[in-house]
Amino acid sequence: MKIYEAQVAPNPRRVRIVLAEKGIKVPYEQVDIVNAVNRGPEFRKINPLAGVPVLELDDGAHIAESVAICRYFEELQPQPPLFGVGAKERAIVEMWQRRIEFALFIPVADSFRQRHEFFKGRIRQVPEYAEAQRQNAEEALAWLDTELANRRFIAGDRYSIADITAMVGIDFGRVSKIAIKPEQKNLARWHAEVSSRPSAKA
Amino acid sequence: MKIYEAQVAPNPRRVRIVLAEKGIKVPYEQVDIVNAVNRGPEFRKINPLAGVPVLELDDGAHIAESVAICRYFEELQPQPPLFGVGAKERAIVEMWQRRIEFALFIPVADSFRQRHEFFKGRIRQVPEYAEAQRQNAEEALAWLDTELANRRFIAGDRYSIADITAMVGIDFGRVSKIAIKPEQKNLARWHAEVSSRPSAKA
Repeated sequence: MKIYEAQVAPNPRRVRIVLAEKGIKVPYEQVDIVNAVNRGPEFRKINPLAGVPVLELDDGAHIAESVAICRYFEELQPQPPLFGVGAKERAIVEMWQRRIEFALFIPVADSFRQRHEFFKGRIRQVPEYAEAQRQNAEEALAWLDTELANRRFIAGDRYSIADITAMVGIDFGRVSKIAIKPEQKNLARWHAEVSSRPSAKA
Repeated sequence: MKIYEAQVAPNPRRVRIVLAEKGIKVPYEQVDIVNAVNRGPEFRKINPLAGVPVLELDDGAHIAESVAICRYFEELQPQPPLFGVGAKERAIVEMWQRRIEFALFIPVADSFRQRHEFFKGRIRQVPEYAEAQRQNAEEALAWLDTELANRRFIAGDRYSIADITAMVGIDFGRVSKIAIKPEQKNLARWHAEVSSRPSAKA
């Protein structure tokens, strides 16, 4: 088993944090995304959509998509649970995981890739959309601050994949000048707590 | 238990298809999205992000996000399985479900909402991005056609949530003139098969 990844990209960080939380060690192989090796024909045999991370199983099968990889390790080793326990809690975690992805993580990512030099010629860039998504991401932070007034973590009392997606998204926002504002005290309190976990450095 | 939904929108259709496949009946309550009732303060108590569908449990809890709702019913009633069986197949289904969402379903949705009158004043619209996403969606169809040369369904031999997301996405593409091309014979064969299931009319 090994994981193709890139140290600098936000999605691989989600997988590294999940593995650190569960104490699982998997060898990593760095893919040179700066020189677009992931967009070449060899890597597209591993993942036709060219993204990292990709998990390679011992039978040679490839699992792409960071959340699919995280969920696979949750099944192999359920402790500590990061996707909830029981049907209802799992549904609530999944709801929050998706809300964070669509309202925050993707807007943050678009703020970067829709205008940054790095993606020029690699995707269809619309810089005006980068700015719209930057504003959407800032609105999401203001909303999350109100949500976190009443609970410790994003999906409830338990740290979950939704916290990981939110923290990675917010930290990646720095390059696009998206940041927690001084008056967003609930969000700042939550961010300080999740960032202090050893897994945050994975 | 009941489900707030809107008959015309693509996301609620995903949930209706999953329930039809599993033979589960849940009362539906229509939300008037045309008049933006979902964006008013009352509905935002049910879902602060204003989207439909939302599942209301008997204890009053609300589960938003269509895939979270589908997964909840998969847990309540695993047969027939729509998210895979066993850790590896479930990871592969999740990979495909996410690929279809990011490469096809969201581009199709953006092709509509980033330029259509319906969303004017409701979201930050960038019409140029609608066109970029329309082209991305067409590329995704060409790619999916090659993928479907070697297998019956999107994620393998078994019909899954990835097929549901893909079919609903493609069908919703009609309003943005996104459609399967005559030469995409694998995709057409697959679309005819999934569309012939009784659940497709749910």
